Amino acid sequence: MRKQRIIALLTDFGLKESSVAAMKGTILSICPKAQIVDISHEIPLFDVRHGAFVLASAATHFPRGTIFVGVVDPGVGTERRGIVVETERFLAVGPDNGLFSFFMDRERVKNVYEIKNKELMLEQKTHTFHGLTIFSPVAAHLANGVEPGLVGPKINNYIHWSIPRSIIKESAIFGEIIHIDQFGNGITNVTKKDLRKIKVNYDSYIKIKIDGKKVSAPFKRSYGFSKTGDYICVIGSYDFLEIAVNQGNAAKKLSLKIGNKIRIKKAN
Amino acid sequence: MRKQRIIALLTDFGLKESSVAAMKGTILSICPKAQIVDISHEIPLFDVRHGAFVLASAATHFPRGTIFVGVVDPGVGTERRGIVVETERFLAVGPDNGLFSFFMDRERVKNVYEIKNKELMLEQKTHTFHGLTIFSPVAAHLANGVEPGLVGPKINNYIHWSIPRSIIKESAIFGEIIHIDQFGNGITNVTKKDLRKIKVNYDSYIKIKIDGKKVSAPFKRSYGFSKTGDYICVIGSYDFLEIAVNQGNAAKKLSLKIGNKIRIKKAN
Amino acid sequence: MRKQRIIALLTDFGLKESSVAAMKGTILSICPKAQIVDISHEIPLFDVRHGAFVLASAATHFPRGTIFVGVVDPGVGTERRGIVVETERFLAVGPDNGLFSFFMDRERVKNVYEIKNKELMLEQKTHTFHGLTIFSPVAAHLANGVEPGLVGPKINNYIHWSIPRSIIKESAIFGEIIHIDQFGNGITNVTKKDLRKIKVNYDSYIKIKIDGKKVSAPFKRSYGFSKTGDYICVIGSYDFLEIAVNQGNAAKKLSLKIGNKIRIKKAN
Repeated sequence: MRKQRIIALLTDFGLKESSVAAMKGTILSICPKAQIVDISHEIPLFDVRHGAFVLASAATHFPRGTIFVGVVDPGVGTERRGIVVETERFLAVGPDNGLFSFFMDRERVKNVYEIKNKELMLEQKTHTFHGLTIFSPVAAHLANGVEPGLVGPKINNYIHWSIPRSIIKESAIFGEIIHIDQFGNGITNVTKKDLRKIKVNYDSYIKIKIDGKKVSAPFKRSYGFSKTGDYICVIGSYDFLEIAVNQGNAAKKLSLKIGNKIRIKKAN
Repeated sequence: MRKQRIIALLTDFGLKESSVAAMKGTILSICPKAQIVDISHEIPLFDVRHGAFVLASAATHFPRGTIFVGVVDPGVGTERRGIVVETERFLAVGPDNGLFSFFMDRERVKNVYEIKNKELMLEQKTHTFHGLTIFSPVAAHLANGVEPGLVGPKINNYIHWSIPRSIIKESAIFGEIIHIDQFGNGITNVTKKDLRKIKVNYDSYIKIKIDGKKVSAPFKRSYGFSKTGDYICVIGSYDFLEIAVNQGNAAKKLSLKIGNKIRIKKAN
Repeated sequence: MRKQRIIALLTDFGLKESSVAAMKGTILSICPKAQIVDISHEIPLFDVRHGAFVLASAATHFPRGTIFVGVVDPGVGTERRGIVVETERFLAVGPDNGLFSFFMDRERVKNVYEIKNKELMLEQKTHTFHGLTIFSPVAAHLANGVEPGLVGPKINNYIHWSIPRSIIKESAIFGEIIHIDQFGNGITNVTKKDLRKIKVNYDSYIKIKIDGKKVSAPFKRSYGFSKTGDYICVIGSYDFLEIAVNQGNAAKKLSLKIGNKIRIKKAN
């Protein structure tokens, strides 16, 4: 018996219309044994960078062999290409617009293919919904055992950005805000290892400079250790340092934006 | 081994309370092999017409044998009947209030049965939740192989409305707005075939008269080909012509309502 | 062949970030045969009482053997313990903060274990996400057949509150508001049986005193029997008496709060 294949979906379609269900029906029509798992369908509309972050963060926890379908696709129907990313553990199917950038950063990429093979697509009555007509059927065929190489030619010039790395210089960490979550927490690219290097441990205080503003906050094991309204820093569910206001919204309070440069030092 | 049966759910219950989960638990208690797929639980409250449109649009993509459970049911607990719709490919279970109208328009209906057989229901402690006490257990029994004819007598006088058809007269298409999606796009009943008949191709401009207002817009392959704030018309994910404002809300800008009559001509 | 085990999830994480998907990926990595069902991920943030109510209400409908994972956890990372609750029909995994209180009230509790066994957990890079590092892997191992007793020692001093019981005295029912649903209906702890004892049947009128205010309303089989804007009382989907305003918001109109004392009498 062939093993059941997981197909995990991420889109910005929401669940008020039929789009996501149409994709699921299409997948199950082609691969009845697919086990469909929703990552999120509430990515902010056309926010490829947000989608890339959530996809990479979720993907790392899935079993080997999982096929990811990501559709955050402002350029649908234009000349942007569709791709299949083959990594050591996973396959990913979607638009060539950077959506798989952070995923590729975390996994060992073996090949990237452009989707060209019309036999693996549905007949196109619409050009506005490649999630339905291209990416879902391609993923379902891959789940059925079709070799990734059959979707089309290998390419090297796919779109790819990297999560910027933090740098340590003279007891200071230089990083940036890479994500703002639904609670307004500012997720940085600073790791626990970085903090240890500048001798910050749990209960240490740190000084943060963000975009000209200065904040001082304790570094704690979890949010439960601070008073309502206080700044607090923790290693959050994304495994990065988060700047938060307990039961408040740090992003609003500090006007945080993705890309804001930060400098972190241990307080004396 | 019996084949796994898909049960696909559509409700207006939302996911903040336990209703949908109670239905899923009930289905799995009766038919442990059921594969449950969510179509949507965010249909606007009591909006049967909206639910009918989303259900029909999603259903067409599902594999043969799928059982749909639809519960948008302002008349629950009153004299309105429960029905099972048997089509050539599918079964559908829910209230007799028009919710399956568009679904029946698209599929070949074989029989409609009124649900009468109390042996297929749960004991009724509440009369406000037929989704739990009637429709879920009936669907689960059908998934177990119970013949649709066992749910109750065949009926012919079920509630049914049709999606109005577009008409072409003297190089003009006369249609109407049949759905407004979450982004404020106005979905019409005009097809790509209709447009071809009046010689409208991709990149043609069309003149639209809606409820007294006049709009001119390009007909494009997809949204990617227009500027922010411009009107644009595409064949959307519902396979119908959509009137949209790129990254804006056409329904608000034009005060669109379902049922608005439209006239479409090719611009010179 | 081992039987497929259902793992049903309830959290306050929402579906905009990767948290829920990370839990699902972790579960499927450890127990590929798990059948994951979502109860709700839209519990109001940190509202343990609301989560407890929804969890208990959903759980009762699930098949024997279901494993529930509940994560509404304001105290994550502090000294609060993690527990596994073993009842006659089910297992439940989550924080020891009262989240399983109403569930324990409804099921026959056999044992409660504190989670101590680090071999059943993921390596903890973060202390803010026990849903990922502890509760998901523990649930997956239980689904694989690990004995509940292996997670850690039996405990008796777990946190537990009870749903307060209604009392009948001199033809009046004394109860309280135990839940307010998404539509603003006030769910009481009054049952149909209570109402029968004071001779209230469908179509009877009842007088309700809530927190000083007085309301008179018909007791009906379902919401379909009242006019828009009128008070109406029904036995709702939670099997309790609900105080509602038809197509309105009773909680707002009456400033209802959980814990409000109510007195119900039959109107003459």
